[in-house]
This record gives sequence, C-alpha cells and structure tokens, in this order.
Amino acid sequence: MLRIGVIGLGYWGPLIARNVLAAPDAELAVLCDIDPARLERLAALYPGARLTQSAADVFEDGSVEAVAIATPALTHYSLARKGLQSGKDVLVEKPLAASAKQAEDLVTLAERERRVLMVDHVFLFSPAVQKLAGLLRDDEFGDIHFIDSVRVNLGIVQRDVSVVWDLAPHDLSIIDYLVGRPARGLVAVGSSPGAIGMPTVAYLHVDYGDDLLASVHVSWLSPVKIRHFLLGGSRKSALYNDLDPSEPVKIYDRGVDVTTDPERRREILVSYRTGAVVSPKVDKIEPLCNVVAHFCACIASRQRPLTDGRHGLRVVRLLEAADLSLARDSRYVEVEAA
Amino acid sequence: MLRIGVIGLGYWGPLIARNVLAAPDAELAVLCDIDPARLERLAALYPGARLTQSAADVFEDGSVEAVAIATPALTHYSLARKGLQSGKDVLVEKPLAASAKQAEDLVTLAERERRVLMVDHVFLFSPAVQKLAGLLRDDEFGDIHFIDSVRVNLGIVQRDVSVVWDLAPHDLSIIDYLVGRPARGLVAVGSSPGAIGMPTVAYLHVDYGDDLLASVHVSWLSPVKIRHFLLGGSRKSALYNDLDPSEPVKIYDRGVDVTTDPERRREILVSYRTGAVVSPKVDKIEPLCNVVAHFCACIASRQRPLTDGRHGLRVVRLLEAADLSLARDSRYVEVEAA
Amino acid sequence: MLRIGVIGLGYWGPLIARNVLAAPDAELAVLCDIDPARLERLAALYPGARLTQSAADVFEDGSVEAVAIATPALTHYSLARKGLQSGKDVLVEKPLAASAKQAEDLVTLAERERRVLMVDHVFLFSPAVQKLAGLLRDDEFGDIHFIDSVRVNLGIVQRDVSVVWDLAPHDLSIIDYLVGRPARGLVAVGSSPGAIGMPTVAYLHVDYGDDLLASVHVSWLSPVKIRHFLLGGSRKSALYNDLDPSEPVKIYDRGVDVTTDPERRREILVSYRTGAVVSPKVDKIEPLCNVVAHFCACIASRQRPLTDGRHGLRVVRLLEAADLSLARDSRYVEVEAA
Amino acid sequence: MLRIGVIGLGYWGPLIARNVLAAPDAELAVLCDIDPARLERLAALYPGARLTQSAADVFEDGSVEAVAIATPALTHYSLARKGLQSGKDVLVEKPLAASAKQAEDLVTLAERERRVLMVDHVFLFSPAVQKLAGLLRDDEFGDIHFIDSVRVNLGIVQRDVSVVWDLAPHDLSIIDYLVGRPARGLVAVGSSPGAIGMPTVAYLHVDYGDDLLASVHVSWLSPVKIRHFLLGGSRKSALYNDLDPSEPVKIYDRGVDVTTDPERRREILVSYRTGAVVSPKVDKIEPLCNVVAHFCACIASRQRPLTDGRHGLRVVRLLEAADLSLARDSRYVEVEAA
Repeated sequence: MLRIGVIGLGYWGPLIARNVLAAPDAELAVLCDIDPARLERLAALYPGARLTQSAADVFEDGSVEAVAIATPALTHYSLARKGLQSGKDVLVEKPLAASAKQAEDLVTLAERERRVLMVDHVFLFSPAVQKLAGLLRDDEFGDIHFIDSVRVNLGIVQRDVSVVWDLAPHDLSIIDYLVGRPARGLVAVGSSPGAIGMPTVAYLHVDYGDDLLASVHVSWLSPVKIRHFLLGGSRKSALYNDLDPSEPVKIYDRGVDVTTDPERRREILVSYRTGAVVSPKVDKIEPLCNVVAHFCACIASRQRPLTDGRHGLRVVRLLEAADLSLARDSRYVEVEAA
Repeated sequence: MLRIGVIGLGYWGPLIARNVLAAPDAELAVLCDIDPARLERLAALYPGARLTQSAADVFEDGSVEAVAIATPALTHYSLARKGLQSGKDVLVEKPLAASAKQAEDLVTLAERERRVLMVDHVFLFSPAVQKLAGLLRDDEFGDIHFIDSVRVNLGIVQRDVSVVWDLAPHDLSIIDYLVGRPARGLVAVGSSPGAIGMPTVAYLHVDYGDDLLASVHVSWLSPVKIRHFLLGGSRKSALYNDLDPSEPVKIYDRGVDVTTDPERRREILVSYRTGAVVSPKVDKIEPLCNVVAHFCACIASRQRPLTDGRHGLRVVRLLEAADLSLARDSRYVEVEAA
Repeated sequence: MLRIGVIGLGYWGPLIARNVLAAPDAELAVLCDIDPARLERLAALYPGARLTQSAADVFEDGSVEAVAIATPALTHYSLARKGLQSGKDVLVEKPLAASAKQAEDLVTLAERERRVLMVDHVFLFSPAVQKLAGLLRDDEFGDIHFIDSVRVNLGIVQRDVSVVWDLAPHDLSIIDYLVGRPARGLVAVGSSPGAIGMPTVAYLHVDYGDDLLASVHVSWLSPVKIRHFLLGGSRKSALYNDLDPSEPVKIYDRGVDVTTDPERRREILVSYRTGAVVSPKVDKIEPLCNVVAHFCACIASRQRPLTDGRHGLRVVRLLEAADLSLARDSRYVEVEAA
Repeated sequence: MLRIGVIGLGYWGPLIARNVLAAPDAELAVLCDIDPARLERLAALYPGARLTQSAADVFEDGSVEAVAIATPALTHYSLARKGLQSGKDVLVEKPLAASAKQAEDLVTLAERERRVLMVDHVFLFSPAVQKLAGLLRDDEFGDIHFIDSVRVNLGIVQRDVSVVWDLAPHDLSIIDYLVGRPARGLVAVGSSPGAIGMPTVAYLHVDYGDDLLASVHVSWLSPVKIRHFLLGGSRKSALYNDLDPSEPVKIYDRGVDVTTDPERRREILVSYRTGAVVSPKVDKIEPLCNVVAHFCACIASRQRPLTDGRHGLRVVRLLEAADLSLARDSRYVEVEAA
C-alpha cells in the first residue's frame, strides 16, 4: 500500500483525501493544514490518518512515500521543492508554480531526484477530454482549425491570483494536450471593472502556428455559468459542454470545404457541409479518481505522468506570457518552447 | 403614400420589399437588380412595382422619394451617394460603407442635402435590444462592467468581406447603442485556417475606457450556432440569446460586491450576490418591420434616425480599426471619436 | 397547370394559398371566404386569383380542378361532400370530419367518384416524421414498446372544438402512420378547469394490442410550449422535438434487455444498455409545401395520398372514441377497425 | 445527542447514515444489514457505529432512540411495526408500506404508542417544492387548474415493485402536499412491453374534485431522463424541473382568462395572458439533510412530521387504487378519504 500525505485541506485537499481513501492501492497516511479547525473537522471522516499542522512533519515522515499539495498557488513551489528534496513523489495542485522559473526548477529537481512530479490538471483525466483525445488520435477531426474555450461564472474573486491563474490553467492544459505541439505566442486582453484591482475578465488568444488560434475566455463576473469548449476540424468538429451531463461531447459532421479549382474559385470560395450530430457515450467517472489512480500507477511503474512537470511548465509559461501581454496593452508575447 | 425603391434583390432586399409592401404609409414603387432572373422571380410577388436593372433609373425617377440599398457592401458608398445627390432619403444595408472615409463623406452629404440617411442595423430595432436599452435607461444594471457577444455559426464564406465586416457590425452596433459613448480603441485577433485567405474567425476587444471592455467573437466556422450577448452590470446583469424564442432576455439579480472597508479587505475582497432570474415579456415583432416603420417616420418628420449616418460611421470606424489591428499582430489601435 | 381553389381564409387557408402559388405545377385559381374583409386583405397578395364569398361558386367553376378546404371543422363534411360531388379532388384540413359517420361517407363518396380525397395531416409530411418512418422501415428501432406524445401550450380556447379535436389529430395521425396497424381501443381522461365547459386538458391512451400503449397529452393551459414525441423500441428509441430546430430528431442507442435465462431471472430481470445519441440530418423543408406537392402529384397520377380518406377516418374514429371515453368516466372504449 | 440506527444499507441507507453523521444533534449508533459484505464496506467510513446483521438486535438496543428503515418496500411494514413496538421513533423509506391496511396499522400503532412515524418522502424537503408550497400559501397561483408530473428515465426494472410503486410515490407525495385536500379517485393506465411481466410505463390520473386533475407519468423505459412538474393556476403557473440546476423553478405570469360576460361569450370564450417568467432563487440544500434534521426536530419536540404516517397512508391508498384500476382495464377507482 502506497502511503500518501495530503497537505492543504481547503476545498480541493479533502476531495483528494477522499479519493486516496477510496483508491485500492493507496493509504491516506497523514493530513496536514495550518488551520487546526480544518484538521478537527476532517478527523472524524478520516480516523486512520495522522493529523499535523506542520508540512515539515509530513516531509520528515519516512513512512510517507508520496504527497499531494493542495495549498494556495503561491506556496506550491516551496512545498513541492521540499517534498521532492525529501524523496517524496509529488502531486501538485494546478498551477504547478507561480512562475516559469519556479516550474523549471521543479522539473529539473524531479528529474535529478528521479521522483514523480505530477500536476493535478484534472480535466485531462475526465472521460470527455479523453474521448476527444481518442477521436483526435483516430484522425476523426482532420486538421484542427480553431479552438474556443469559454469558462465563465460568478466566482468569488480570490486574493492571491487573478482569474487568469485561477481558471485558465484548465483550458490551457486541455489545449496543450489536444494540440500536441508547443504554442508560439499569445495575446491577452483583460479587464478589472468595479475597482477590484486585478483582472476578473480575460481573453487569451494562443497562437499555435499554421493558422491555429486557440482562444480562452475566463471570467468571474458572468451571471451564467458556461463551459463551452469548441474544437473545429477540417473534417469534423466537436463541442464539449461540461455542464451537460447527458451529452457532454457532441461531434458534428459539419464543415466548410474550400474550393481549390481556380475556375470555380471565382464563383464560389467555400461551401457548407452539414451532417449528423453524434453524442458518443462518455463514462461517468469522477476525474479526480482517475488522477489519484494515475499518480499511484506512475509511482508504481516509475513512469512519467500524462500531466508531468513539463506539461505543468508549459501551462505556467502561457500564464506568465498572458500576464506580460496584459501589462503591455495586449501586445503579442512569444512563448519559449519547452 | 411614401414611394420607396429597393435596389439589390439578393437575400435581404426582398425582405425589405415585403416589409415596405406591408407598411401602411409606404408603397413599393420600384425594384432594381442587375440580374434579370431575380427581377422575374419577384415580379409575380410584387405586381405593383416597376422593375428595372438600372440603379440610375431609380435615382432619376422623380416619383420615388426614398431608396433602400441592399447590394454588396463594396457598392454601398457609390449607390448611397448617388441616391442622396438625387434628393432621395436613403436606407443602407450594414455596413454603411467600406471605409470610414466613405462613411464620413456620406454623413456630410446627407447633412448638407438635408436628407435622411439611415443604416439598416436591424438588431437595434429588435424588441429584445429595445428591452435592454429601456432597462439601462431605468438604471436597472448600474454601471456596465463588461459586454461579451458571441455570434458564431457555420457560414458561407463570402468573397468580398471578411467575417469581421459581415457579422461584427451587428454586435458593434448594439454595443455602441447600449454603451452610449464612443470607443477609445480596440484589439482584434483573427485567424484564417484552411487556406481561405481572409479571417473566418475573429475576436474584437473594444476599449470604452473606465475599465469597460466589450468583446465580440464572430466566426463562420462554428459547427453550432450561438448568439449570446452578455452584459454585466454592477447591480444586475443580462443575457440576450437571440436563438431562444421563449426567453430571449434574462435579467440576473446577481453580482459581485467589492468590499471597500480596509479592515475587511484583508479578509475578503468581494462577495457573491445571487437572486432571482427574470425573463421579461418581449414582443414578437419582426425587427425589419420596425426598421421600415422608423425609416418612414423619420422621412415624414425629418428627424434623425436612431441608426443615422453617424452611428453607421462609428461602426465602420471600429471595423476599420479591427482590420488595422489584425494587420499589425493584434496591436492596440485607437479609434477616432466621431 | 392544376387550378386549385382555397375555401376558408382564416389562419391556415392563406398558408395553403401561398404554397399553391409557389408550387411549380399548380395555379391559385380562386380564393373563397364568407368574410369580405379577409378577401380584401388577401387580394393584394394574390392578384391572379378570383375572389368569392360563395363556396358554391367555387364548386360550380368548371375551370377549377381541385379545392382545399380550410374552414372550421364542423363545416368540413358538407363542403368536402359538395366538392367531391361536383367532381373536384379535395384536400381537407384536419380533422377530416366531425364524426366517423361523416368521414365514412366522404371515403365512400370519393371512392365511388374516383376523386382524390386527402386530409391535411401536415406532420406526416415533415422531414422529421419521414425520418422516423424511414428508420422504422429499416428496422432500426426493433419492436415499438411505447409512444408518448406531449403537445401542450397556452392556446386560445376554441368555440367549436375541444382540445382533443384541435390538437390530438396531429399526434394520432403520426402514431397511426408509424405504428401501421389499427388501434383496438382507448382510454381518455380530461378536465375542464376554470368553468370553460369543454376539455382544455386531455390524455388519450391508445391501445394497439401486443402491449403497445401510445399516449397523447394535449393541453391549451400549459404555460410552456412542449412538443415531445418519444418512441421507445426494443432496439433503439427516438425523441422527436419539433421545437428544437438544430436537433429535431435524436436516436438513442439505449434500452432495457430482458433476461430470459430462468436461472439468471431470479437474480436480475433486466439490465440497462446505453450507447451513443445520434441526431441525423433532417432537411429544413416546410411540411405544407410537401403537402401541396403530394396533393398535386396524387391528382396527376390518380394515386391514393399518404393521408387519404381512410387515414383521416381512422383518426376521426379515435377522436370519437375519446369523446365517448371522456363521457363515461374514462371507461375503455373499443375502436372499430377501418 | 439522539442515537439513531439505520436498517438496510443498499442504495439509500448509506445516504441516510451520512446525513445522520453530519447532523449536529444526532449520532449514528448502529448500522444493520443482512449482507455482511455491505457492513464491511461501510465499517471504514463509519468507525463510530456498531454493526449488526440483525434488525432485532437494533430494536432491543435500549441506547438507540430512533431507527431509519431503508430496506426493500415489502419489509417496511414488519420492521416499522417492530420498531414502534420497541418504543423507537421511526423513519421509513417510501412507500410507508405495501398496502393501505398495513399503512393504517402503522399509523394507529404510532398514535397509540405516541411515537414519531415519518415517511422519507424526500422531495417535500427539497427547496424547490418548499418554494412552490410557499408561493401557494401566498396565493400566487390562484386556484390550481391542473398538475402534470413526468418522471421518466431508463431504469433498472425492479423485482419487487412496479414502476408505479417505485417512482410515483414521489409525485403523489408532492401533489398531496401542494393540493392539500384528499383525492377522490383515479384512473391508471399502464403497459408492460417486452415481456417483463409488470408495468414499466404508467400514467396515473388523480381526481381531486372541482375539476382538478393531477396526472403522473412514470416510466423505466424512457431513453431520456425527464423531471417535469407543471402546476397551472388561475393566476400564475409553475414549472419545476429537477434536472435544471440553475433554474429549477420557473413562475409564469401567464394564463387563460374566461369571459363571463354573456354578450362577449358569443364572440370570444377565453383570451391569453402572457407576462414575465421569474426563476426565484432556490437554495442548494440536499433534501435528505433536511429530512434528517426534521426527523430529529420532531423527535425533540414530539411533533407530527410534515410527512407523517397519515401522509404516507394517503400515498399508499393512491398506489393501491392505481393497481386496482390497472387490473380493471383502467376503470375509475374511488379513493377512501384518510
């Protein structure tokens, strides 16, 4: 049994803990939070776990093989660093770190120490995104023509991160995974109405080269919750709507055909194509359950996770580039290849 | 009876003709198109109208008091100019002209000639937009915090205009009307996948100052048709969904409250507010019917239309700025005040 | 050119007239209504048609080959009778007649006179119902296990017919067509709240034998408009939603498998099966256009229409049985085989 | 602290246990199931609870004050009876018992023993139904004109109960609560396609007198899940859609106005009224949490629960009447007043 400690018991930590408890090959060894009230509340639910207010205490515990870090984003780096240095395999909540420099440092450290470093980009483990990835592998979509992801809702504005660092990691992680090549640059546009002092509405337009534009709209100010992820291909297109439990993924046999015949181009440039819409069966598995299972499997087999440090680093580089673009009147900012 | 001629009988012209025919105080005097087949098809439906292939013929017809121009965008300027010069009141399909310079010229000419110049920005005459405008006048929304408009579908790519000039005039016109002050500048991002050679997907981010960002997403490549217009206010917010016939406008009594108390700001920056959702009754009148009625009324009373030349000019300036931004790697482009 | 007269110019008559006008092989010969104001309003739109207030005038007009009758239901019988007797082919608005006896009489007369008698059960000519019928012919659904049709809205209560005779003919006609065998009997339940004096809410449960129950819910009192037609099969099932323009027909690869193995039956009786959902492409043709085309084609070829008098008679028998069941405390009423 | 035992740990029992654990004034004393595997699985989650395979053991435990019975429906009667006889307050899963006679016996026993007898009709504790009840109390709807409840999905057919006894208790309980007067009789229609041998599709039409018809459609064979509860009033109407998390309750300011003026009645019988749609704010509390809190509160104050034995009895009488009507070709069956 793999003994896992969970550090940070705000909203996400207890969900990780519950899934560790339910995992057949893992054991919830220790729960850690600086707030004793939180520890006490969880004590009744997890009677087998040791409780501690000290992260150092977790890292020093030789019986603990792996740690999950679910603390505020600004602390990810130092905690993950200490975890790796003390020989633990580490699962970090998104984003991996608060800067690309920090993220690079963690990637280097994990590789040198031969530790598993995994980022909890949970959507990559959702059956819907896996379905899209499978269809892409089977070349169902043809070339990707555009991606447009909307993730907006009325959100509690956070003190330590902007809406970009809070919500966009999800979209950027999905896009990085599906596109499968590094971004070249991006343009970010944002606004901070109502004297809040940091972006609460933002648009990221990521340039993947070859005319592939992937756009992300995140907002904490939308009165309606929308989760629309559109992927347009030369052959088919898809809509992934995380809020539609009955048909989360729809595949459209629709597109635009470009005429290459120079004679006909004078008359008609492109024409429509519309066919059936298919909602494939998508399993109803909690993505976080898959995350914990994948973390355990990678530890057992010493393999790189799907969302390894390099994946997390690419996402952080995009977030950092977005901040830079926002600071420069939405100027185009190049993104370093990983 | 006001005698009206309609020039250009592609898709939109016959719809104008039908509404002129149905208007109690107007008469469909003449129908004009260079294509004789189109004229022939419409002859049976409009037996009272004279048919001609020549626009000059319409302008020279002294019995015709007003003309509606529904030809391709690139011809709007010269036809509207001739119409005004020959003493007609003129209704022009959107966009008013193909450049700000042309639009300015038409505005000057109309004012000098004391002619009515109206742009057919049809959405301003929809009961839903009128409902939003009324709620804004009643200060139901408070300050406008953001606007986000999505107008995407699978569209037949056009030869003479990009998706920006084809679809965005609708959104820019609505936004100009509701915001009520001139834009300062904009950032445009676009892409042209699949070797089509002109933008088929685009995002316009219009800066109205005071932290008000109005964003428009237009696309001809979306497999699903979406018409989502979100307006977020400090007090209430609205969603206008043109594809929902039963509840086109929803008003959300929801928002984010910013704490100004410096003591509490350390703890909590903002908090949620969620209340009821109200879908006000919205009349089911065809907007184009209102357009024709308004055109007739302005002619009768010699008043400026709601969508006068200056309104049309402001929209064209934004379109031109968008083209410039697209050509300059999405650089921020200032927009001249009207 | 087939010369057609239209009798009755309330709501539906002008729609028929417009489609006759647009039909390539038909000519709108005469328009008839007892109300001169209605005639006058339509005169401008249909300048080629003769106008008359007298139905007898239409029947006596030797140049008119066929008539469409779109008058109130209670007058269908006498007008259709006169039309057939004067040698016209006849299209009658639904329901065919106000009683089975009348409908039988019309069927007999049409057969004796060798005239085309067609009922305007318009939904059978909708691309969606045709799609369902095609899938049934291809045995995509297996055995039909149940049908449930909901057709409710806020409706103007009519003076001359109950909600059963007003709305249910649509559903009963679709069901008769899809099931393809005569009903055995039915149970009807209705209510007349608010002192209106005739049913404004009703449920018809039609027994087709072999455990096939087809239920119809019609109402004029529903605050929301619903058009849900569910067809459950042993293999697949379908939902036809006439109010969803983008996906009117959905095919569900879902069902319930019954265990026949006596050993396993003790443990488990049935099990689920869930697969993909497919929305086939459904053409966007106006059903009434197809109705007029089919009427013209049947006249030209002297063939029985899809919705011939016998089909109309079967629907009227069900309506009459419903009235009888309602009058007898929802007692089961047998329906005579056609 | 109120010590509660939970008997029956299939699907619903563990949910009750979790809510008992979370209740501030209750303690999960003992968990009971005849299946040792189930007990074992729950042992880890509820370390403080005693485990037993014997219900008698629970009833004999003097430290246990109240029991929740979540076993198969056929065993409710004998277990609830034993619980009441051994002096426990009792919460029973719906339906209260398998026959009206059994339910009456439990009611009598509970009253004689002065024990709390509560049925877990969980929907009455949902914020949405409470919202509807509040609006009815405030006379927002006027007279109730009709109720129509659809509760259909693809369901695992159960061995011991028909779809009527499995699903309809929810609707009948809500209707009984909202209407507030006893039903007079009902008509039930059902079918059992596919050789399953018991109704899997059923319609119950409950007559509440004064032209109030309340209809319930339940099915295990629907490929789509639908939860539509329509309540039509003389003033306003409501739609409660349990599957719409953002707007579960919609209030329609729409209706039909009946003309009582005899002069105008000749012309027009009724007219439309359509106004705004309002979705009031509905709290997001788990109904079962409210059930457990209400059970605890009634025990503490010795008050009758909202869903007391008499309420449960009325629901069972309707279920029994439905079985009788189904067995008699849908004949109208009177229901005994409570």
